[in-house]
Amino acid sequence: MAISKPTAERLSRLALLLEQQSEENTPITSAEIEVLTGWASHTIRKDISSLTKTSGIATNTGYLPCELAKAIRETLGFAGTEQNCCIVGLGRIGSAFLDYKGFAESPFTIRAGFDSNVNRVEILKADFPLYPTFKMKEIIPRLGISYAILTVPAEQAALAAERLIDCGITGIVNFTPVLLPAPPGVEIEQVSILDALGAIAARRSINTKE
Amino acid sequence: MAISKPTAERLSRLALLLEQQSEENTPITSAEIEVLTGWASHTIRKDISSLTKTSGIATNTGYLPCELAKAIRETLGFAGTEQNCCIVGLGRIGSAFLDYKGFAESPFTIRAGFDSNVNRVEILKADFPLYPTFKMKEIIPRLGISYAILTVPAEQAALAAERLIDCGITGIVNFTPVLLPAPPGVEIEQVSILDALGAIAARRSINTKE
Repeated sequence: MAISKPTAERLSRLALLLEQQSEENTPITSAEIEVLTGWASHTIRKDISSLTKTSGIATNTGYLPCELAKAIRETLGFAGTEQNCCIVGLGRIGSAFLDYKGFAESPFTIRAGFDSNVNRVEILKADFPLYPTFKMKEIIPRLGISYAILTVPAEQAALAAERLIDCGITGIVNFTPVLLPAPPGVEIEQVSILDALGAIAARRSINTKE
Repeated sequence: MAISKPTAERLSRLALLLEQQSEENTPITSAEIEVLTGWASHTIRKDISSLTKTSGIATNTGYLPCELAKAIRETLGFAGTEQNCCIVGLGRIGSAFLDYKGFAESPFTIRAGFDSNVNRVEILKADFPLYPTFKMKEIIPRLGISYAILTVPAEQAALAAERLIDCGITGIVNFTPVLLPAPPGVEIEQVSILDALGAIAARRSINTKE
């Protein structure tokens, strides 16, 4: 089975979306998914047809959200397996995730937070334990953490990423403005306000010229 | 001239990257850009060849960062024009942008912040004025603001986006977990920690299977 990266990324996002809306499990059509996501409905149908298991996910009136989300998780290989994350850097942005509710319905769980400032680690409250940075090497493997959300100041980003990879982290969501190179076996996704603004500006400039 | 959306988005990101590194203006090769960004060097060369003006940007040892960034800005249609932004919602994530330094070298400038909590507006400090939300209708057109960075709580996201579009905003960076539909003429870019984690997980699952 060959799934392209764009398809995998769309399916992953679709699963999250379905999980957020799955309380009622009312069937959803590809046209409705198009309205929610902006992806063309034929792309959505094609993505869904590439799942390893497609029986029982479609009805006459649309896809069943829970079943479709489950089939996506199975295809992408993390059904039933928890994906353990940590937050590295508990300043303004990092600490904003301490009470972020969105993780609850997702396959991702935050297991730990780290900050080099021991005071901050003592004072902040979270549903998971917070540790000083020097404990990363011990805690990350012990808790089976493979993802890090990197929210340290820009000047510490490169060193922090290196250390995380040393500790066994294989996926980093990079909230710093620093572009981090990804060594083999490590995936890095940069989340950047300037990139987001730039993407909008780029799309607008194309639309204006059309 | 036809530039595809992915090309425009890559070029926009490349311009930001070059602007951040442009102090020395040492030539940079497409191979070096590949290391920094993860894009294939032939894709980078193809993207650059689609610029409206390519003379004077390449030397024997690589592209001149300042000149290349300028050529990209010209092609994408916002060279010399300031792109005015506002922050809507000054809670943890929103207020984290109040002292974010990254905007300085970018074409984007934050002109105003808004929050429905008048106390918060009074207490927070920023280099730009902060206003209570009810003033959006007056301030946004007056300051020529066309972008909004949306950092309100999830339950307020849909209404806030509607109001912003009413006020003339045509580009929204959506930091809330709510998927917002984009009416014609409006571009919305969602920035989501769960999408970022999902994208990494999806890429990892593909790599494992290859």
